[in-house]
Amino acid sequence: MFVNRMAPAEVLSEEALEILDGGWRRIVREVGIQFLHPQALAILEGAGQRVEGETVYFDPDFVAERVALAPSEFTLHARNPERDVVLGGRNMVFIPVQGPPFVRRGDERRVAGIEDFEDFCRLAQELDDFDSAGGLPCEPSDIPVESRHLDSVRALLTLTDKPFQGSQSSGTAAADSLVLGEIVFGGEMLATKACMYTNVNANSPLRWDDRMLDSLLAYGEAGQAVVLTPFLLMGAMSPVSLPATLAQQLAETLVGIALVQTVRPGCPVVMGGFLSATDMQSGAPSFGGPESLLGILASGQLARRFGLPWRSGGGALTSSPAVDAQAAYEGTATMTAAFMAGANLVLHTGGWLESGLVASFEKLVVDLDILRTLRNTFTPLEVDEASLAFDAHVEVGHGGHFFGAAHTMERFRDCFHRPLLATTQNFEAWEEAGSPDANERAGRIWREIVDRAEPPPLDEEIRDAIDVFVERRTVELTGRAPEPRVLRERAAEPVAAGGRERRRGRRAR
Amino acid sequence: MFVNRMAPAEVLSEEALEILDGGWRRIVREVGIQFLHPQALAILEGAGQRVEGETVYFDPDFVAERVALAPSEFTLHARNPERDVVLGGRNMVFIPVQGPPFVRRGDERRVAGIEDFEDFCRLAQELDDFDSAGGLPCEPSDIPVESRHLDSVRALLTLTDKPFQGSQSSGTAAADSLVLGEIVFGGEMLATKACMYTNVNANSPLRWDDRMLDSLLAYGEAGQAVVLTPFLLMGAMSPVSLPATLAQQLAETLVGIALVQTVRPGCPVVMGGFLSATDMQSGAPSFGGPESLLGILASGQLARRFGLPWRSGGGALTSSPAVDAQAAYEGTATMTAAFMAGANLVLHTGGWLESGLVASFEKLVVDLDILRTLRNTFTPLEVDEASLAFDAHVEVGHGGHFFGAAHTMERFRDCFHRPLLATTQNFEAWEEAGSPDANERAGRIWREIVDRAEPPPLDEEIRDAIDVFVERRTVELTGRAPEPRVLRERAAEPVAAGGRERRRGRRAR
Repeated sequence: MFVNRMAPAEVLSEEALEILDGGWRRIVREVGIQFLHPQALAILEGAGQRVEGETVYFDPDFVAERVALAPSEFTLHARNPERDVVLGGRNMVFIPVQGPPFVRRGDERRVAGIEDFEDFCRLAQELDDFDSAGGLPCEPSDIPVESRHLDSVRALLTLTDKPFQGSQSSGTAAADSLVLGEIVFGGEMLATKACMYTNVNANSPLRWDDRMLDSLLAYGEAGQAVVLTPFLLMGAMSPVSLPATLAQQLAETLVGIALVQTVRPGCPVVMGGFLSATDMQSGAPSFGGPESLLGILASGQLARRFGLPWRSGGGALTSSPAVDAQAAYEGTATMTAAFMAGANLVLHTGGWLESGLVASFEKLVVDLDILRTLRNTFTPLEVDEASLAFDAHVEVGHGGHFFGAAHTMERFRDCFHRPLLATTQNFEAWEEAGSPDANERAGRIWREIVDRAEPPPLDEEIRDAIDVFVERRTVELTGRAPEPRVLRERAAEPVAAGGRERRRGRRAR
Repeated sequence: MFVNRMAPAEVLSEEALEILDGGWRRIVREVGIQFLHPQALAILEGAGQRVEGETVYFDPDFVAERVALAPSEFTLHARNPERDVVLGGRNMVFIPVQGPPFVRRGDERRVAGIEDFEDFCRLAQELDDFDSAGGLPCEPSDIPVESRHLDSVRALLTLTDKPFQGSQSSGTAAADSLVLGEIVFGGEMLATKACMYTNVNANSPLRWDDRMLDSLLAYGEAGQAVVLTPFLLMGAMSPVSLPATLAQQLAETLVGIALVQTVRPGCPVVMGGFLSATDMQSGAPSFGGPESLLGILASGQLARRFGLPWRSGGGALTSSPAVDAQAAYEGTATMTAAFMAGANLVLHTGGWLESGLVASFEKLVVDLDILRTLRNTFTPLEVDEASLAFDAHVEVGHGGHFFGAAHTMERFRDCFHRPLLATTQNFEAWEEAGSPDANERAGRIWREIVDRAEPPPLDEEIRDAIDVFVERRTVELTGRAPEPRVLRERAAEPVAAGGRERRRGRRAR
């Protein structure tokens, strides 16, 4: 996994940090936070906090003390132990886009379905750049909403062997995800180690709603990793001031973490942030601007004060509707900020388009080039006497070239980063080839990767148990059996070229 | 002008800095540097350096002592004193693309001409983002090569009132540029202050050629600012090792600076760097990769050790032949590195395309959005009690929105960065508008700016003196009078809508 050894940017003075610390403390104490969840209210009241109606007025020191119980780093286990990741410290974990209801494949933009979801899983599995497929690379809308989490988690567990996100769409979905986790990891391991994570969003401003609290409590009680992320579009869910938004972000995450730590002290958590500006002319979200970049840098500094693993808001975010220059510069800017800020967990690192409404396969490839460049740039340069290659200078002398130098000949194959997508083709050759822009070339690249993808090995008994559970729960939740799935067909026969052929036939290109 | 107050990235350890310091010292002492210029050789020999043939073997301490004579910052004057810039410290000076032989306007790619040159001058003048048009935003190939510098400098002096670069294409061009500078600034000012700069490139590896040395000596003797920039494509002009390339870059710039300081102690100089990788499969240059980004970060750290203003290799560089996602992510990466590294002078901040072969008007607009975002991001966030907007939280409470809050209503017009190019339009509205991507929208933006551009005021006597000199020298250098130019026609009549109409009619769209 990637370790970011570059010193993180420090954009806040000690005085600014103190003011922001005072900010969240005053919010939780004087305005309080709403919890639309009787059990959560009871837990917090039982822990000594003042509750009026659905609002909890916190003692900030209580919050800080509970937050201090969370580990500063923890291992998130994968069903393949080689894919385990450590969250915290200088580690960075990368996950592709999460959540879009639409997908874009080349020129085709449509409502997302389970096949798209599965293809994103395949890409996340094949590409070492990603540490996990997350939990919802796109919304599989062709599956009934009641049982959608079952097909989603099954795809994550069978098409990838990397860490996965359990569903947080409802308490039921959380409970089912935990059962599936138990099938894969076994009860003892699940009881003692983080074998999945979930991501819960505050219903900002200053509110945690029942659905998210159901999940927070379910995963928290089970000791699984909880990522707590306010989703703050300044002007809409928070004031049009970045410091005010940072204070609010702290208030919302910290009380959520305090709740988790009250339910299960020491439960692994990730302090999340996701803030951006709003286009105040239209009310539309706007990504990749300076407010979001400064927000990422400041959020990192704040998270480090609490000694917590943290998730940055970015990823390669953009408002652009096309895989064009805007998509790339906004995406590069937010992704770079995550590196500069030393984020530990970075969602949306591949495929985010159109303010998160669209999961784009081409954009994922664009983002890979960005991601790889940044990973290499944030890897310290090794400088020693040998690296000075003095003999090459003696050999080449004045005004010559180094193409044929012995030093070059020994190293030319792997001396430089080789981009996946970027071309250095000269104009004439490029025109000859049909002038394919980055978007067009990206289309060829992801299709090749998906076509060559094979599901990672999985014990047949576990695979059967997953299927049996998904089938039973689908019937219970929807009143009917699940649609026969390609995935299931493949499970019944050895994975071979024939399976891929059928898949290729079914998939819309 | 922009002041970058973010602490620059530190990618080299003290030990690495010492090794690189030893690296350049060994090169200049043991391999030496070639100077294809008898006068330069005589000057250096006279200063006590060992000369064999055209190679100078330097005492590294001599080099360091002479370099120490250069000012750590200086004012570069403009003909409009409000446009003066200070090079050094935390200041950043931004200049659009320099040097391409081709231009791209939308779908049209062709050999550049003087009208393109003039339009880049108009953009650089109209846009506060740029501190100067530089010296050669593109090569005006429709002007005879012997007199090209005259039309170029005239356009810079009449279409902009910002600092300008004198021509370095030959000793003659340098001398003529200095005369034009004297016409505009007066002899006394030119003799005592930096009223123009020039950029000279080493003929790497380890060679300074006669043409560049002619310019270096002409501007250096005149006390004008000299930017010294090795152009290093690793694998071609330097070894395939970044540390080796950094040591070479230091060797080449430092001896050039030592020469300038020997000719005129205290002459303002800028330590330049421009290094990138080569695609070792094709031999083509490759921009925006991790080697160039780390190279920029390391170059900044090295330049600061010498206390010199420095020029980064970036700008918004890219190898892409199209204004597409690749162009934007490579460009954003190199431009961000220049900010992270705390560069003082940044050429190619708008319009660079196709490895610098093409000056693209659309790309310039893309780069403006990047540049503006970075300028805002690298401006410290102000955090005080008022910025916490506590009253807005009290007003909005839990689960509401901030669109109508008093705090928002007072600030919504200018609370956020407003991009020039990026859209937040929803998909349906965007599709309705014809699905214009960033490249297409950029075309509308630059055309509007060029169309509204007016030349800045210029004393009529000075204007006439420029024209008389350019005409006389053109006859002397080419044997024939210059072509009647649009610029000259406009000079004979008041600048008004009619002038713009004619320009619009003449310009290829």
